[in-house]
Amino acid sequence: MRSHYCGDLSINHLNQEVIVCGWVNRRRDHGGVIFIDLRDREGIVQLVFDPQHSPESFTLADQVRSEYVLQVKGQIRPRPKGTENLDLATGQIEVWGQDLKILNASETPPFPVDEKMEVGEETRLRYRYIDLRRPENLQRLRTRSLIVQQLRNFLDSQGFIDIDTPILTKSTPEGARDFLVPSRTHPGEFFALPQSPQLFKQLLMVAGIDRYYQVAHCFRDEDLRADRQPEFTQLDIETSFIHEDTLMDLMEQMITKLFATVLNTQLTTPFTRMAYTEALNQFGSDKPDLRIPLKLIDIGDLMQEVEFKVFSEPAQNPQSRVAVLRLPGGATLSRKEIDDYTKFTATYGAKGLAYIKVINCSQGTEGLQSPILKFIPNEVVEEILNRTQAVDGDILFFGADKSYIVNEALGALRVKLGHDHGLVEQGWRPLWVVDFPMFEWDEKENRWHALHHPFTSPKEEDLPLLEQNPAACRSRAYDLVLNGTEVGGGSMRIFQSKTQAQVFQLLGINDVEVQEKFGFLLNALKYGCPPHGGIAFGLDRLAMLMTRSNSIREVIAFPKTQTASCPLTEAPGSVSESQLRELKIKIINQPSLVK
Amino acid sequence: MRSHYCGDLSINHLNQEVIVCGWVNRRRDHGGVIFIDLRDREGIVQLVFDPQHSPESFTLADQVRSEYVLQVKGQIRPRPKGTENLDLATGQIEVWGQDLKILNASETPPFPVDEKMEVGEETRLRYRYIDLRRPENLQRLRTRSLIVQQLRNFLDSQGFIDIDTPILTKSTPEGARDFLVPSRTHPGEFFALPQSPQLFKQLLMVAGIDRYYQVAHCFRDEDLRADRQPEFTQLDIETSFIHEDTLMDLMEQMITKLFATVLNTQLTTPFTRMAYTEALNQFGSDKPDLRIPLKLIDIGDLMQEVEFKVFSEPAQNPQSRVAVLRLPGGATLSRKEIDDYTKFTATYGAKGLAYIKVINCSQGTEGLQSPILKFIPNEVVEEILNRTQAVDGDILFFGADKSYIVNEALGALRVKLGHDHGLVEQGWRPLWVVDFPMFEWDEKENRWHALHHPFTSPKEEDLPLLEQNPAACRSRAYDLVLNGTEVGGGSMRIFQSKTQAQVFQLLGINDVEVQEKFGFLLNALKYGCPPHGGIAFGLDRLAMLMTRSNSIREVIAFPKTQTASCPLTEAPGSVSESQLRELKIKIINQPSLVK
Repeated sequence: MRSHYCGDLSINHLNQEVIVCGWVNRRRDHGGVIFIDLRDREGIVQLVFDPQHSPESFTLADQVRSEYVLQVKGQIRPRPKGTENLDLATGQIEVWGQDLKILNASETPPFPVDEKMEVGEETRLRYRYIDLRRPENLQRLRTRSLIVQQLRNFLDSQGFIDIDTPILTKSTPEGARDFLVPSRTHPGEFFALPQSPQLFKQLLMVAGIDRYYQVAHCFRDEDLRADRQPEFTQLDIETSFIHEDTLMDLMEQMITKLFATVLNTQLTTPFTRMAYTEALNQFGSDKPDLRIPLKLIDIGDLMQEVEFKVFSEPAQNPQSRVAVLRLPGGATLSRKEIDDYTKFTATYGAKGLAYIKVINCSQGTEGLQSPILKFIPNEVVEEILNRTQAVDGDILFFGADKSYIVNEALGALRVKLGHDHGLVEQGWRPLWVVDFPMFEWDEKENRWHALHHPFTSPKEEDLPLLEQNPAACRSRAYDLVLNGTEVGGGSMRIFQSKTQAQVFQLLGINDVEVQEKFGFLLNALKYGCPPHGGIAFGLDRLAMLMTRSNSIREVIAFPKTQTASCPLTEAPGSVSESQLRELKIKIINQPSLVK
Repeated sequence: MRSHYCGDLSINHLNQEVIVCGWVNRRRDHGGVIFIDLRDREGIVQLVFDPQHSPESFTLADQVRSEYVLQVKGQIRPRPKGTENLDLATGQIEVWGQDLKILNASETPPFPVDEKMEVGEETRLRYRYIDLRRPENLQRLRTRSLIVQQLRNFLDSQGFIDIDTPILTKSTPEGARDFLVPSRTHPGEFFALPQSPQLFKQLLMVAGIDRYYQVAHCFRDEDLRADRQPEFTQLDIETSFIHEDTLMDLMEQMITKLFATVLNTQLTTPFTRMAYTEALNQFGSDKPDLRIPLKLIDIGDLMQEVEFKVFSEPAQNPQSRVAVLRLPGGATLSRKEIDDYTKFTATYGAKGLAYIKVINCSQGTEGLQSPILKFIPNEVVEEILNRTQAVDGDILFFGADKSYIVNEALGALRVKLGHDHGLVEQGWRPLWVVDFPMFEWDEKENRWHALHHPFTSPKEEDLPLLEQNPAACRSRAYDLVLNGTEVGGGSMRIFQSKTQAQVFQLLGINDVEVQEKFGFLLNALKYGCPPHGGIAFGLDRLAMLMTRSNSIREVIAFPKTQTASCPLTEAPGSVSESQLRELKIKIINQPSLVK
C-alpha cells in the first residue's frame, strides 16, 4: 500500500513518485494551496495539494482533519527556497499530492498528538492508542524493544538457551503476594502466577541445561508503591558450573555491549565492586548512586566520651551509628532550607538534623556556626573537620541514631542534596554490591529473614556461621546498581540438600511447610544438582533508565495505574455468576467493605 | 570451573589438559581401571582412572554412581587402537583423569537416563529435571529455542517491533474459557488471562506501531482434548497498511528461512493456496495434509436419479454430499479391514461405508465386487470409475450424508488410509487456506458464529452480503497448514467502526454487551484506525512438527498433564484461608461435587 515510510523520504528521492500512508499531524491552507503534515512511525513528511495539479485530491484534502488516515501518491519535489525546515529529516522536500485516498476518518482526539500539551495520566492511559502516537512515547517502546533484542543476541551468542517456564504455577515462598487463579478442573484448588521463575530455573540447571535465559513475565500483588506494576518483566538468567566472578564478568560484557549499541555509550569496566557494609557505611544505602560525590563519614569513635547524649549514646551502642555528611558550599543554606532538610530526614525517622556551618576554620572553631558546638569539645570538632576535609563555606550534617535510621535518613539526604545542588555527575555509574549478609533479624516477627531469598548460598568459608552466628554469615549474592537504581540481582544458589534444609530451618519454615512448598526442590537436589547460580534484571527499570523516563509506566505498552487497574480496558471487571459457579467460587459480600 | 564441554572434545585437543564437569552417565571397571562416561549438554566423553596415575582420584572414582556430578581434570589421549567409538563425536579420545572432585552425589534416579527405557508420562513429568537429561529431550528444547530465535531475527530484520501486552487483562469475547484472577485491590472484580493479545495488537496498530510482533503467552481453560495445554505460546504478528497477499508472502519468506536454518530444508515456494470450499471438497478438511495423494471426488450429480435412497437423498439435498475416495491397490483389503474402516468412519457420524472393489474393470462392471452394485445403474458405475480414474486392484469408498459428516468421515478416512498404506509422502507440504466464510450457522443456538473471530474483515466485494446473505459472505482470513496441522491463522481486520458494529449485530451480541466488552475497541476505531491485519503462529505446534515430536508436551519445558496439573510442583494446589479472605472470595463446597 505504500512505497516508503513518510519519515524515510529525503532529497535522495527527488522526482520519484512515491506512495505514503499515515495520519494527518497538521493541515493548513496557505495561498490557495493545502499543506498536510503526514505522520507515520518513522517521521513526518509535508504533502502539498493544489487545485490545478489535482482538483479531486484538493477537494478531498480540504475535508481531512487531524488524525485522519490517508494514502497519498505524489512526486517528491524540493520545497521552495526559504521554506525548508532543517529541523525535520524530510524538511528539504515535499510530496506533490496527486492521488489522495481517505482510508479512515477520525473524531477530534481527546488531546492533540502534535503538541507538547501536558495530559493527565488517567487520560493518557485511557487513550493509550493516541498517546503512543506522540513520537517520544513511541520511541520509548522502540528503544525497549531494541534493548531486549540486544540482550537476547548477546545471550544467544554465549550459548544461553531461551526457555519458557510456566505462568500457571504453584503458590511460592512469598505466597502472601501471589496472584491466584482458580482451577476449573480442580475445584477448590488454585494456580499462582509466578513472582519469578526462580525454582524452575534451578530445576533447569538440575536438568543440565547449563545456560538458561528467559524474558520472564512476573507478577506480584502488592500495594502499589511509587513505581511498581502488578506485572513486570525480568531478564532471567541461570548458569551451572560457574563462579560468581565469571558470571559477573559476563554480565558486565552484556551490559557494556548493550549501552554501546543502544545508547552509543562506553561504560567503564570493570564495574566497581563494593561490599554491602561498605555501601551502607559510605552511602547509607545498598544501592548508592555513585554519580553523587558525597559520602557519610563515621565519627562514632570520636563521640564515645562526649557529654552530649544525643551523640554519645548511639556512639556507644553497636546497633547504632553517628555519621556526618559534608555538603561543599552549603554554609550559605538559609534557616528555612535547613529546616526543610530536617523535615525531610524526619520522614526517614531521624529525630533531628544537627549541622555545623564551616566558616573561617583556619582560625580554629571560633567562626563555626552551629547549635551543637557548645556540647562538643573543640578537639573533637577539629578532628571532625579534619576527617571530613571540610573547608570554609561547607556545611556538615550529622546523624546519630539506630544505624538503619542514620543510613536511611543521611542516605536519602545525600541524594537530595546531590540533586538540589547540581552535584549529580553526568553519565552512568554501574556498581556491583556484594558480600551481603545471608539473614537479617526481624524484630517484629522475632525471626531471621533471608535478605535475598532462601535459595541463596552462603559463602563457603561462612558455612560454619550458619550454626554459630547467622548474623555474620555472608551470602554469595550480588546486586547490580545503576545510578542509584537496582537493575539486577542474583546469587550462587544452594545446591546441596543438607544446606538447603539447614537454611529453611534457620528461617523457621517448618518441615510440613517445607515439604509442601519446596518438597520438589529438595527432591531435585538429591538427584545430582550441579553448582549453579544466576541473576535477574528488571527490564522495565533498565528500559526506564536507558530512555531517561520518569516511570516504568512509560516503557510499558499498556501499564496499569497506581491502583492496579487499566483505564483503557477497564480491567479488572466484574464477571458473570455462571463463570464463578463453574469455578466453584463465590464473592464474599462484606458490607463494611463496600463503599 | 571447566575448560570445555564434554561433548566438544575431539582428536583436535590431543595432549591438552582439560577440565570437564558433568553427570556420570555410566561407570564400569575393566582390568583394574575405571571408565566413566561423563555427560553434559553437549555430549559424552570417556574418563579413565587408573590407580597408578592418580591413586586418590581412582579411589573416588570407585565411589561414584550414576548421575553423580563430577569435575575432572585430565589430559586428552587417544583411545587405544580398536576401542574407538565412531558413533560418538568424542569417540576417538578419552580424558586421562588426574584430579577428580565429586561436586554432588545422586540417589539412584527413578529411571535411567542412559537407556531408551520407556517411562510413563506422569513419572517423566514428576521428575522432569531427570527426564530432560535424556539427550533427545534436551535437544527438543534447544531446537525450540533456536526456532524462536530465528523467527525473532527475521522479524527484527523486517522492522517489526517486539512489544509485550498485558497478561492481567479483561475477560474477552470467548469469555467462557477465560482463566480468572481475583483482584485484591478491587474486591469482587477479576482480571482475565488473555486467550490471545488480539485486541491489544489491534490497538497497537491504531497507535501507529505499524509492524508488531510478540512471542505471546496465551491461556485457555478448556477441557483438555488430545493435545492442548492450558497455557500455550504463539508468535503474534500484526501490520498496518498492507494487503493480505503481501503479508502472506512475507510469512512465507519467514517460514522458508526458518526451515532452511533450523532443518536445512528448502520448502517449495510459493506455498499452495487453496480456497476453503476447495479444501473441503477435495480433502474433507480445512487443514488437509497434502502429503497424502488421495482426494474426495464428488458424484452427487450422478446420484440424483438413482433409486438407492441412501445416495439419492443426499444427492438432492444442497446441505448434503455424495463423494467417493479411491484407494489404489485397496481391492485386497479383507472383510475385517473394511469393517474396521467402517467403524472408524462411524465415530465421525457416518452411518455406513459403502465400497466397490475394482476388479477386471476393462471388462465392464462384471468383475466389480460390492454390496451396492445392484442399486446403481451400470452407466453410473462406469462414470464413477471414469471420474475416479480407477484401475484394477483399487477400492472405492463412498460417503453420502450431510456434507459436514461426509467431509469429516471421508476426510479422516483419507488420512488413516494414507498412513495405513504407506502413502504419506516425505517432506513438508505447507498450504494457505483462504476464502473462508465469515460465518457459520449454529443450529443449536440458532444464530451466526464467526468462523474466525468477530474482528475479521469481510472481503470488500462481499460487504453487501453482510445484509443480503451472510452465509455467502467471505472473509479476508487465511490459515497456514503444514502436513495437516494448522500452524498459523490470521486475517485482515475490520478497521471501520460501522462495519464492526454491523458484524457484532449479526453475531447477536447486544449493544450493552458490545459496549461492556468491546467499547474500547469501537472507541479506538473512531480515532483514525489504519487498515491492518496479522497472523498468529502456534509455536508449540510448530516446534512439535519441526522436532518430529508426538505431542506439544515434548517441546514445553514444564508441561501440564491432560488434566491441567503439574506432577512436579503439584499445581494447582490448595491455598490458605487468609489468602482467600484477602481476595474476598470463598470456595463453594458442593458435597455432590466432592468425590
